[in-house]
Amino acid sequence: MTERIDGHTILIGLMAYPIRHSMSPTMHNNAFAKLGLNYAYLAFEVTNETLPAAIQSIRTLDMRGSNISMPNKQKVIPLLDKLDPAAEMIGAVNTIVNDDGILTGYTTDGIGFMKSLDDEGINIRGHKMTLAGAGGAGTAIAVQAALDGVTEMSIFNLHDDSWDNAKRNVELLNEKTNCKATLHELEDRDDLKAEIADSFIYTDATGVGMKPLENETLVTDPSWFREDLVVFDTVYAPRNTKLMQVAEQAGVKHVFNGLGMMLEQGAAAFKLWTGEDMPVDYIRQILFDDDQQ
Amino acid sequence: MTERIDGHTILIGLMAYPIRHSMSPTMHNNAFAKLGLNYAYLAFEVTNETLPAAIQSIRTLDMRGSNISMPNKQKVIPLLDKLDPAAEMIGAVNTIVNDDGILTGYTTDGIGFMKSLDDEGINIRGHKMTLAGAGGAGTAIAVQAALDGVTEMSIFNLHDDSWDNAKRNVELLNEKTNCKATLHELEDRDDLKAEIADSFIYTDATGVGMKPLENETLVTDPSWFREDLVVFDTVYAPRNTKLMQVAEQAGVKHVFNGLGMMLEQGAAAFKLWTGEDMPVDYIRQILFDDDQQ
Repeated sequence: MTERIDGHTILIGLMAYPIRHSMSPTMHNNAFAKLGLNYAYLAFEVTNETLPAAIQSIRTLDMRGSNISMPNKQKVIPLLDKLDPAAEMIGAVNTIVNDDGILTGYTTDGIGFMKSLDDEGINIRGHKMTLAGAGGAGTAIAVQAALDGVTEMSIFNLHDDSWDNAKRNVELLNEKTNCKATLHELEDRDDLKAEIADSFIYTDATGVGMKPLENETLVTDPSWFREDLVVFDTVYAPRNTKLMQVAEQAGVKHVFNGLGMMLEQGAAAFKLWTGEDMPVDYIRQILFDDDQQ
Repeated sequence: MTERIDGHTILIGLMAYPIRHSMSPTMHNNAFAKLGLNYAYLAFEVTNETLPAAIQSIRTLDMRGSNISMPNKQKVIPLLDKLDPAAEMIGAVNTIVNDDGILTGYTTDGIGFMKSLDDEGINIRGHKMTLAGAGGAGTAIAVQAALDGVTEMSIFNLHDDSWDNAKRNVELLNEKTNCKATLHELEDRDDLKAEIADSFIYTDATGVGMKPLENETLVTDPSWFREDLVVFDTVYAPRNTKLMQVAEQAGVKHVFNGLGMMLEQGAAAFKLWTGEDMPVDYIRQILFDDDQQ
């Protein structure tokens, strides 16, 4: 088989640092190949310092766009021509689309969260969510869930440096969406237990449980969980997080790690660049077959 | 089979306009795949106007380098940090190597010409060449052949706008190399016939014979050629040029089109970027198998 890249191939980037171990290039290039789309997706080590020149290269090299990850998701905003409303609310961009030199910023992390639940037949619209964390993932999830119709949200955060983010997210939801949001201290264990008990879904977007904190979880007592609660951990390394293990001990039927969200945030970017649906099941097989984690 | 591009893949470019129909991406990507080298080679439409920003993107995106083709081969020179001596003499660059932000310009067209003859067991060193044309290809061939040890060169050119190039090339060879060069008018048919008769190799680097001029040739009379002359046409579309047909009528044993030169100029760039030898026979098969031209 000859290589698929030819003189017509259009470049799409991923600009972040560190980035070499990202699965996104494997995800997107296999999806392009499967659908016969003439793009190539490459990772570039880009820091805050080199970001302006890197964004310029999207224009110069007529790239179709780029993914943006840490530490550039906020810094990229003033370098773009337009912002999708959700990206503007979230204050972060993970996807750039280049339409004839006009660069528009999107964020697909929250879309990926909602879509991954839809994929599993779980509809959280019209329900209440308890959400831990107000960093990048937590903010994207909060905004997209609120925009999509989650009616009530209890946002928990440590009362530390990131408290103001959580406060901002709660105000944002109450001002700009129909979702009624409340702010809670993650240190208040009784409050967390009570809010989870009153929720349709509990989502942990703090990253606790991710390597090297793989033995940690915010909820250690299975009795906090009902069987019909939905438990969602944004972590996917390890695949079976400590939080998920607690939920499984409690007999919770719907327990998810962040794999589906990761795939669907990529699929949403893929759709923005190509207009095509990523073959998600095929990509899941390629990325996670023979998975030992 | 999954796609070979991952987060570690390093980009190499081709910057020219027009460029979408180039065979170079197919050449290099198949060679990378065959040798397991983690690079991807993509073409970018770059004009004189966008060239400075495109060269900047080599630095910003930590590209390993780039090929440069028309109309940028001369214009790129002031944008680089260093020039290979042959590229400096030729006054053109077709290959850039990026060593930790230091961009060095090379030209591999002349190397490709000499190497393609070596591949066929033809050694023109110590001999006389008659060369028609003093454009990009003609200049690269003249300089590299003179540097490599061709002892005498008769350079023919139309007495038109490009005459000064030919004049410059002849002066350059006489001043900077051990090759004795003379300048001749392509309009003088008797002179061309006489110089060919006195030469070891006749090389046409004018591009006459290339589509859409595929029915043209500077030499129409087979009697101008001896059987033991080497006849080299830099054209490779069509594969069997009019000049080659005339040479074959004359019973010339060693008649070549520009395919070998094209492959070997790529192989020389490949070696500069990767340090590895391109698998030229394998690439020739991929590019020219089932060739109908």
